[in-house]
Amino acid sequence: MYYRMICAALIALAIALLLGPGLIRYLKKLHFGQTIYELGPSHQQKQGTPVMGGLMIAAGILAASLICHPIPWSGEWDFILPLLAVSFLSMAVGFADDYIKAVKKRHDGLKPMQKIAGQIIVSLGFSLYCYFSPKVGSCIQIPFTGLEWDLGVFYIPVMTLLVIFIVNSSNLQDGLDGLLSTVTTVSSASWAVICLILLVSARAADSADTTTVGVFAMSMVGACIGFLRFNRYPAKTFMGDTGSMLLGGGTVAMALLLRQPLLLLLSFFTPIMSSVSVIMQRYYFKLTHGKRIFLMSPIHHHFEKKGYSETQIVSMYAGITMILSLIAIVSVCAMQ
Amino acid sequence: MYYRMICAALIALAIALLLGPGLIRYLKKLHFGQTIYELGPSHQQKQGTPVMGGLMIAAGILAASLICHPIPWSGEWDFILPLLAVSFLSMAVGFADDYIKAVKKRHDGLKPMQKIAGQIIVSLGFSLYCYFSPKVGSCIQIPFTGLEWDLGVFYIPVMTLLVIFIVNSSNLQDGLDGLLSTVTTVSSASWAVICLILLVSARAADSADTTTVGVFAMSMVGACIGFLRFNRYPAKTFMGDTGSMLLGGGTVAMALLLRQPLLLLLSFFTPIMSSVSVIMQRYYFKLTHGKRIFLMSPIHHHFEKKGYSETQIVSMYAGITMILSLIAIVSVCAMQ
Repeated sequence: MYYRMICAALIALAIALLLGPGLIRYLKKLHFGQTIYELGPSHQQKQGTPVMGGLMIAAGILAASLICHPIPWSGEWDFILPLLAVSFLSMAVGFADDYIKAVKKRHDGLKPMQKIAGQIIVSLGFSLYCYFSPKVGSCIQIPFTGLEWDLGVFYIPVMTLLVIFIVNSSNLQDGLDGLLSTVTTVSSASWAVICLILLVSARAADSADTTTVGVFAMSMVGACIGFLRFNRYPAKTFMGDTGSMLLGGGTVAMALLLRQPLLLLLSFFTPIMSSVSVIMQRYYFKLTHGKRIFLMSPIHHHFEKKGYSETQIVSMYAGITMILSLIAIVSVCAMQ
Repeated sequence: MYYRMICAALIALAIALLLGPGLIRYLKKLHFGQTIYELGPSHQQKQGTPVMGGLMIAAGILAASLICHPIPWSGEWDFILPLLAVSFLSMAVGFADDYIKAVKKRHDGLKPMQKIAGQIIVSLGFSLYCYFSPKVGSCIQIPFTGLEWDLGVFYIPVMTLLVIFIVNSSNLQDGLDGLLSTVTTVSSASWAVICLILLVSARAADSADTTTVGVFAMSMVGACIGFLRFNRYPAKTFMGDTGSMLLGGGTVAMALLLRQPLLLLLSFFTPIMSSVSVIMQRYYFKLTHGKRIFLMSPIHHHFEKKGYSETQIVSMYAGITMILSLIAIVSVCAMQ
């Protein structure tokens, strides 16, 4: 049971590392280079770096979580199916966007309405699954208190919005070399540890499902570390919307299945801040007719304009995520 | 009980961050700059960076672990005293070395015999403490098996050597900006999580001691993250032998008190490899009368000579430590 998780991390790591060089060569040949249009401060030198490197993360997660998944798929309410569905369907939306931008060379990618429509379908479907699943239901746990909060039928719209919010936050965070992959490595490791703690303290009944989530979390850790081999500064490939939406989808799916969506505020704090900073910037700009809070949003570009280097910002975000993830882990222990 | 750990991390983080700028200014004024003598490949530009920044880690750990320590000291076999004794006495040896080198400007620092003598006193004393403590004793746990291995009276010499080995490994690893502090952040976080898992699954009897170790681990995490603010590439300060021996001593003390010294092979793998690579290099050189296995030892300088940048090596070491630490955590779960 426990050792499946180790295998998942190692398999995902190996696949990402093995696929990496070939995938990068292939993407370069297809001219899948990222075209940089003033997305960040002075990133012109990144022109030509192939996007869609997220496909190596996808391959690692898919293979590792299927191989190490504890039960052969039985057609019942099994957690592996929704986990893969949410992450890979979210990825599909991002992939379509990347594909249109990179291969068809059309700057705008998917139309906003198409993107949102795709995301709503995925997130609404997943919220309905959770609501009706006897293993999840409409209760969520409130960290630090041990209380459960029954959202009733409001669970469905709230969680639909949450899934969309987290997937897009993850997408917004992906703006510096190694940033999102490092943060997701740490936050996924904390989800894996949370599963371990639930398994150690839990009734045997639901252990297969917790193990499934733990295996998925560990395959995310392994795949992200493997991807970082190529994505750390100076990046040889970007994950693209393909990868960022995959990671966002996978993270939010784990949180919902464990009935711990509020813990995302801790372990996924920095991606959420990316979204929040964009929203604050936009509203403040409208309210004040042209003033800005941040030099640039999302907030990691603000730090860049302030003179921090990419690696400094990544290490700051990693440190913050590590501390907050440990707090999340402690809160789960305290509820046992 | 659990929340003490969170407080420890936050207090240690805050102290390191607050003390940092003042300490660096003060050390610079005292001309505590590191004098670089061909210690690594082309590090001449690091001349003048103040060493002994490890003092801010020390302050963070000391304050946080004393404030958040679960029991007021009662004079009994309480774990906080040996933890602080081993780490701070190890630090004292390193501090003496740094002080002689940096302030007295004598290249050689402590004489090797003085250094070893100091380390033997600390490690022998600690091994005797563990051997005679009813809470530790001469048994160690074998990971993955759930078996206990009674070393009997051999516990004392074996653990004495182990403590010296780990403290010096930690010292050898400290050769690149942010390297040891990043690795120790991850490995200490894994010790904190191991304590949490023991607490969740344990009998109440020994929970105060496990909490003590957990609080200490979390204060190491907080202090290291705070220190990384100043030590990451390009480093504004080095921890020096002061810091590296402190971190090595603290890590090995936690492992011994939890009766899990063998887990150091996983969570402290990269520092151990630093030692092993130095030993291999030296023996190979002697055996072959002048050939080398690595371009330079410890092995991180080998990677540097191979053309990897400092940040690339740090991120590789961090990834390896994270995977191995997760394996260590899983092995502890499997033994519950």
